[in-house]
Amino acid sequence: MSAPLIDLNADLGEGFGRWHLTDDEELLSVVTSANVACGFHAGDPATMRRVCDRAAERGVRIGAQVSYRDLAGFGRRAMDVPPAELAAEVAYQIGALEVFARAAGTRVAYVKPHGALYNRVVHDEEQARAVVEGVLLADAALPVLGLPGSSLLKTADKAGLPVVTEAFADRAYTDEGTLVPRTREGAVVTEADAVVARSVAMARSGVVTSLGGREIEVRARSLCLHGDTPGAVDLARRVRAELESAGVHVAAFA
Amino acid sequence: MSAPLIDLNADLGEGFGRWHLTDDEELLSVVTSANVACGFHAGDPATMRRVCDRAAERGVRIGAQVSYRDLAGFGRRAMDVPPAELAAEVAYQIGALEVFARAAGTRVAYVKPHGALYNRVVHDEEQARAVVEGVLLADAALPVLGLPGSSLLKTADKAGLPVVTEAFADRAYTDEGTLVPRTREGAVVTEADAVVARSVAMARSGVVTSLGGREIEVRARSLCLHGDTPGAVDLARRVRAELESAGVHVAAFA
Amino acid sequence: MSAPLIDLNADLGEGFGRWHLTDDEELLSVVTSANVACGFHAGDPATMRRVCDRAAERGVRIGAQVSYRDLAGFGRRAMDVPPAELAAEVAYQIGALEVFARAAGTRVAYVKPHGALYNRVVHDEEQARAVVEGVLLADAALPVLGLPGSSLLKTADKAGLPVVTEAFADRAYTDEGTLVPRTREGAVVTEADAVVARSVAMARSGVVTSLGGREIEVRARSLCLHGDTPGAVDLARRVRAELESAGVHVAAFA
Amino acid sequence: MSAPLIDLNADLGEGFGRWHLTDDEELLSVVTSANVACGFHAGDPATMRRVCDRAAERGVRIGAQVSYRDLAGFGRRAMDVPPAELAAEVAYQIGALEVFARAAGTRVAYVKPHGALYNRVVHDEEQARAVVEGVLLADAALPVLGLPGSSLLKTADKAGLPVVTEAFADRAYTDEGTLVPRTREGAVVTEADAVVARSVAMARSGVVTSLGGREIEVRARSLCLHGDTPGAVDLARRVRAELESAGVHVAAFA
Repeated sequence: MSAPLIDLNADLGEGFGRWHLTDDEELLSVVTSANVACGFHAGDPATMRRVCDRAAERGVRIGAQVSYRDLAGFGRRAMDVPPAELAAEVAYQIGALEVFARAAGTRVAYVKPHGALYNRVVHDEEQARAVVEGVLLADAALPVLGLPGSSLLKTADKAGLPVVTEAFADRAYTDEGTLVPRTREGAVVTEADAVVARSVAMARSGVVTSLGGREIEVRARSLCLHGDTPGAVDLARRVRAELESAGVHVAAFA
Repeated sequence: MSAPLIDLNADLGEGFGRWHLTDDEELLSVVTSANVACGFHAGDPATMRRVCDRAAERGVRIGAQVSYRDLAGFGRRAMDVPPAELAAEVAYQIGALEVFARAAGTRVAYVKPHGALYNRVVHDEEQARAVVEGVLLADAALPVLGLPGSSLLKTADKAGLPVVTEAFADRAYTDEGTLVPRTREGAVVTEADAVVARSVAMARSGVVTSLGGREIEVRARSLCLHGDTPGAVDLARRVRAELESAGVHVAAFA
Repeated sequence: MSAPLIDLNADLGEGFGRWHLTDDEELLSVVTSANVACGFHAGDPATMRRVCDRAAERGVRIGAQVSYRDLAGFGRRAMDVPPAELAAEVAYQIGALEVFARAAGTRVAYVKPHGALYNRVVHDEEQARAVVEGVLLADAALPVLGLPGSSLLKTADKAGLPVVTEAFADRAYTDEGTLVPRTREGAVVTEADAVVARSVAMARSGVVTSLGGREIEVRARSLCLHGDTPGAVDLARRVRAELESAGVHVAAFA
Repeated sequence: MSAPLIDLNADLGEGFGRWHLTDDEELLSVVTSANVACGFHAGDPATMRRVCDRAAERGVRIGAQVSYRDLAGFGRRAMDVPPAELAAEVAYQIGALEVFARAAGTRVAYVKPHGALYNRVVHDEEQARAVVEGVLLADAALPVLGLPGSSLLKTADKAGLPVVTEAFADRAYTDEGTLVPRTREGAVVTEADAVVARSVAMARSGVVTSLGGREIEVRARSLCLHGDTPGAVDLARRVRAELESAGVHVAAFA
């Protein structure tokens, strides 16, 4: 029987011009997939280029972290973007990143929506279809990374795009296996040991303990790590080390 | 002896969201090369997509009209952008347009700087090198369209990029063959008959009468037409008709 | 008994840099209140200044047409902006316009939300409170112009701000006196004679015929005219002329 | 004889949305004048509001740090903005900040250009006049803070605006009393003790040792401190402490 397999993804390149946010160098030494900001919520072209160059050097996969056009809100404000506009905006961002991925000798390997768009396409079928249309415009074989059971992944799957599921070791799950909304008590798991233990359980057994105390199934090909604080990078590094100690093979999805 | 050959290029897709400027449908029935705005001075993604689709249907070549990041100034305000930023910004714009060109079944066929960037790289070697670096990042075989003798074309040529020269039938030339600055009297040729006659002379014989009254050589593979007013579109259509009547073969550069 | 009184308002200054939309000169000869775009959905500073100068010359009242920050979508895409951000964005826009109003010898005389924000604050109490908070930050005595019965006007009234109601002669009303959604058949009244007749009925008698054929009450201190097409300006001019012929006093609210 | 008097100014509020740069709380405990970013190079409205509230609480003067419209370049890229546009952009920024200053119970007390605009108006008379025109649009009695001998201060003075000179303790001066360009060796004074000593010498005696070793006169009413790194804040605090120990009265200009 083969070893359990997990991909580690995190958001990178989320500065803009003079402003910096993510510790890209450190994160690239931990993750196997880099969600690179494409200029709409963060990510100026020079940063995109540098992150692609570094990711390619280290063999980290490059993903397009597409967003609403909202620098002022960091893409965290849901927007009622008409589908045709949204599809074109998604394709635009993928194309812009692709130029730097190719220049670095690789390709954009997947697409993951950011922030409010990520949350919106869990349930909003119209915007999910628009995102998928945007991906198809760019590349009809580009995997989409998202939440299991989301409108986005269902729509992408129907459209023939490869889909990749992800889980969050630092987020509480309901008994039904969905994420506990951030507005509810206990939605975020803050204790480092707990995050590490949950990561290992998710990767080895595909299970996690829900907020209600039940062991539920959370099968995901990728774990999403957060890296926008110094502590988060240390935690991410520890998660990776413990996964490997526990016999989990940490590797990008195909 | 083969017929004289000329390409006709014009700026297209120069609206942004609710705002419209160029009559893209009409221009696509006249030109052989469309300089498509890429989002930095104009050109929202949905417009870029539509223009690429239409251009591909009509067999018009798609060029990336790259600009300084300046929506408020329409790219007409020169900016001291550091070379590394400028190179990345140019590549970003080309990549974004490429996604729509490919989706339309074609490719970005050339790059032409817009507005203040176009004027700047006539003489500014540092920015010219940055633009060329940006083009190379995107595609090491992508032609660059510009002014004969400009820093941009010299730098592009040295870097191994194909270069394509253009002339302006509605602009006055000095005895030395350079454009008369817009600030000088007589810089712009406004009479339609004169514009048509100059277009034919340029395309057939590679000559034009300078502001000083001398016949000077202006060899160019492409003529730049302007299309942001209704009258300009009519004039462009007439220029094309008269070129064809005069035995000039109107066709995109290879 | 005094003559019926009506204010006429329209959106002005809705270009941005190179792009133009509204025929500001013509509109200023028709309306008594100018909703001036403040830079977030349209309206560059030079345009704001020019429109304020012209409005002041003609004695037209200047209102701040505040919007979501969304140039690409012209403020027509609803956004989930957190209240504290929205309040500050509203105040920022009012302050920016105020500088040009004062320089023209007058003051910002009222606030009217634009586009998606206008529609949102009809029902969204949280955003309505945020808009009111933004107005209060700028000036605790500034009138708010909006839809009768809207969350915005209720909230503004509770906060002690003067409120001004407006009606739309070119929009159909339900039997309950609310606007027929644009997605429904017959939502927009396109026939010029009908728009004129409805304007006069609204101003003289405070009534209009609903889509269902009933005569309903629509009391409003201001009529909103549209001016972003040449035909619309002609219609606006005709509406004003017919109002005056019918003995309606066309004048800004106090 | 009265005690020597000096104002301390620093840039504040230079984040944008999710991004932070300056440690505003700490700086407000050191400076007497806060140059608040107004949204064009940095400074979202919610940040502007918060900084104004805090500055007012502490009795720190609020200045409008006006900039080219250039978020991507943090206002550090010189731009050829036509004078009428620049004047309106300057006024727009002052007006937007004024709303938050007034809401905090105070007023915008001065204007200081930022980054590339600051450097440009040292010599560029056209842009200097445009900045002054923008200030005059906003308030004909608003002081302008800048470099002694600059076009900006000369133009402001001619226009009847109060002018306030500033000096830089961490920048080397030429024998002629101008700043050594950053491109030259030794342009920036990095040793903390030297910066402190120079601050005291400038404030007490109006002199500083030039790069060439001569004691030159640098009379300035304000010292500019830098605060965008943790070390810089500590240094700023030490400068203030040593100034006070040396009998210098640290106070805002009138």
